Amino acid sequence: MPAKPQFDEKNSALLKESFRTSLPLPSLLDPGFEEALRHVLSASGSMVRPRMVLRLSAAYDLDLESAHNVAIALEYFHTASLIFDDLPCMDNALQRRGVPCVHIEFDESTAILTALALINRAYALIWRAIAVCPRNVQPHVMTYIEKRLGVDGLLNGQSLDLRYSTLPHTRETTERIALGKTVSLIRLTLVVPAMLGGAPAREIQLLERVAVCWGLAYQAIDDLKDVLQSATETGKTSARDDLLDRPNIASAIGICAAVERLERLLHIGDLTLRRLLVRRPALSFLSKLRSDLEAELRQVTDVACEMAEEAFTREPS
Amino acid sequence: MPAKPQFDEKNSALLKESFRTSLPLPSLLDPGFEEALRHVLSASGSMVRPRMVLRLSAAYDLDLESAHNVAIALEYFHTASLIFDDLPCMDNALQRRGVPCVHIEFDESTAILTALALINRAYALIWRAIAVCPRNVQPHVMTYIEKRLGVDGLLNGQSLDLRYSTLPHTRETTERIALGKTVSLIRLTLVVPAMLGGAPAREIQLLERVAVCWGLAYQAIDDLKDVLQSATETGKTSARDDLLDRPNIASAIGICAAVERLERLLHIGDLTLRRLLVRRPALSFLSKLRSDLEAELRQVTDVACEMAEEAFTREPS
Repeated sequence: MPAKPQFDEKNSALLKESFRTSLPLPSLLDPGFEEALRHVLSASGSMVRPRMVLRLSAAYDLDLESAHNVAIALEYFHTASLIFDDLPCMDNALQRRGVPCVHIEFDESTAILTALALINRAYALIWRAIAVCPRNVQPHVMTYIEKRLGVDGLLNGQSLDLRYSTLPHTRETTERIALGKTVSLIRLTLVVPAMLGGAPAREIQLLERVAVCWGLAYQAIDDLKDVLQSATETGKTSARDDLLDRPNIASAIGICAAVERLERLLHIGDLTLRRLLVRRPALSFLSKLRSDLEAELRQVTDVACEMAEEAFTREPS
Repeated sequence: MPAKPQFDEKNSALLKESFRTSLPLPSLLDPGFEEALRHVLSASGSMVRPRMVLRLSAAYDLDLESAHNVAIALEYFHTASLIFDDLPCMDNALQRRGVPCVHIEFDESTAILTALALINRAYALIWRAIAVCPRNVQPHVMTYIEKRLGVDGLLNGQSLDLRYSTLPHTRETTERIALGKTVSLIRLTLVVPAMLGGAPAREIQLLERVAVCWGLAYQAIDDLKDVLQSATETGKTSARDDLLDRPNIASAIGICAAVERLERLLHIGDLTLRRLLVRRPALSFLSKLRSDLEAELRQVTDVACEMAEEAFTREPS
């Protein structure tokens, strides 16, 4: 049986190296294109998703090669989505991961071709993992990946995100955008290794729910930070997202309602995680992720309380 | 055993309908995104590649469902590549297939998301065909598709095409660009159905060579038409490609040398096709394609002869 992944610190370095080398560049490549590809492949992110894929894969006895193929494929999809998001016709960003965006360092057409190269390679890597998994599982994994990345998932989220200013600024809208744009890749990260490892339908269902609760919670925390930070700094809630009219649940429904929603999401996540760990104790590492979220939550609620006190002391006596 | 494809005229209508319906749109899709997707899916091209895929698939006893999945997938890849090519940062086109380009009718970000939706669906459709083909064949098909579409194929061709003005204007350059940009999808069209049908390595090798010869020949004919047309109309060879400094073998090496190269490519193609038909008579429909090319060739050479005569009569007596 193939060796299982290990989880010491070397894993991060190993994954960053795989990220750099898992898209082989042919000798006759256009030099400008090659330079852009090296620029992107040498600037990997925190690799939090790939590390998570390796842990999930180990919990479901997935072979190490498939685990790495899925881990790098998902990070390539993620990186490609960032390159597209940064384009002038989308978020018009200048920097990413501490270096100039691909369309700034090179040009728009090169950025697009680089993102497409990552996507093409990502599908090939995912295919390799699917090809060696049980035949009865293959169609489900393929359909699941297609849905998360396609018009049911990531692409629709990005499309709604770009049109947010024309949409009702409600919890439903902000969460629909987050579900497509942010949560899709988190769902793939938690669910695909389990599917490939032949997890029972019920466990996949529970992993799905945890991914959705935590994904939406992460986004809510980000949104609250954006609003609270500017609130504490400037004394009023003129947050960056507000100024740019970007989707933000705290701007849409208010800080208190957003904190309540966040606590509710984490509560549902906790109940689901408990059921999941009874079935698959090997997933106990997920509790660590949960406590990280708890720390973030506390940070956010503390700031919210300070603001409430401040508002109270400011009241006329 | 599944029914084989049939090749009456209904096939074209059937394929156009599959093209329109093979990317299911979810109910909660962003309306702007949905409109753009319908715009693209309702304006399919001539479907020459999909029809060819069905013929190849029949010659290799591929089941009808796989044949259709491959046919539509390749046309989705092709359509996505056109949407990207038409963007302002690439060829900056206004019309495509008789209707405004997606980035004109909608906007650039919507055009990009629409192309990505086609690509995501195309990989899923191709996967379905790969999933039901013999296991020993799967890795070869996956690698072949990845190479034709990725940095070894289509993407590198497009990248070189965009930088043509900075490259030496030689036969080697124009053919390298054609190999990546034009020939990649022709190779996929002729080779993937054979691979999935379990064709012997030698037949795949011969199909590859026919695809490359005919693909380069098609491009050379297009290039010659561009130069000759303007030559006959204006009396001098100020072709559109010349004006835009687009890759064109006739501009690069001259009309006569380009015609010679074209005849050479067709000659090698003929020798290869003969060997192929001995092994697989069911591929005899390829001879029809060859006679179409012959007609195009005659058209081009006739114009070239007229020009030569004209030049002769213009000489001082």
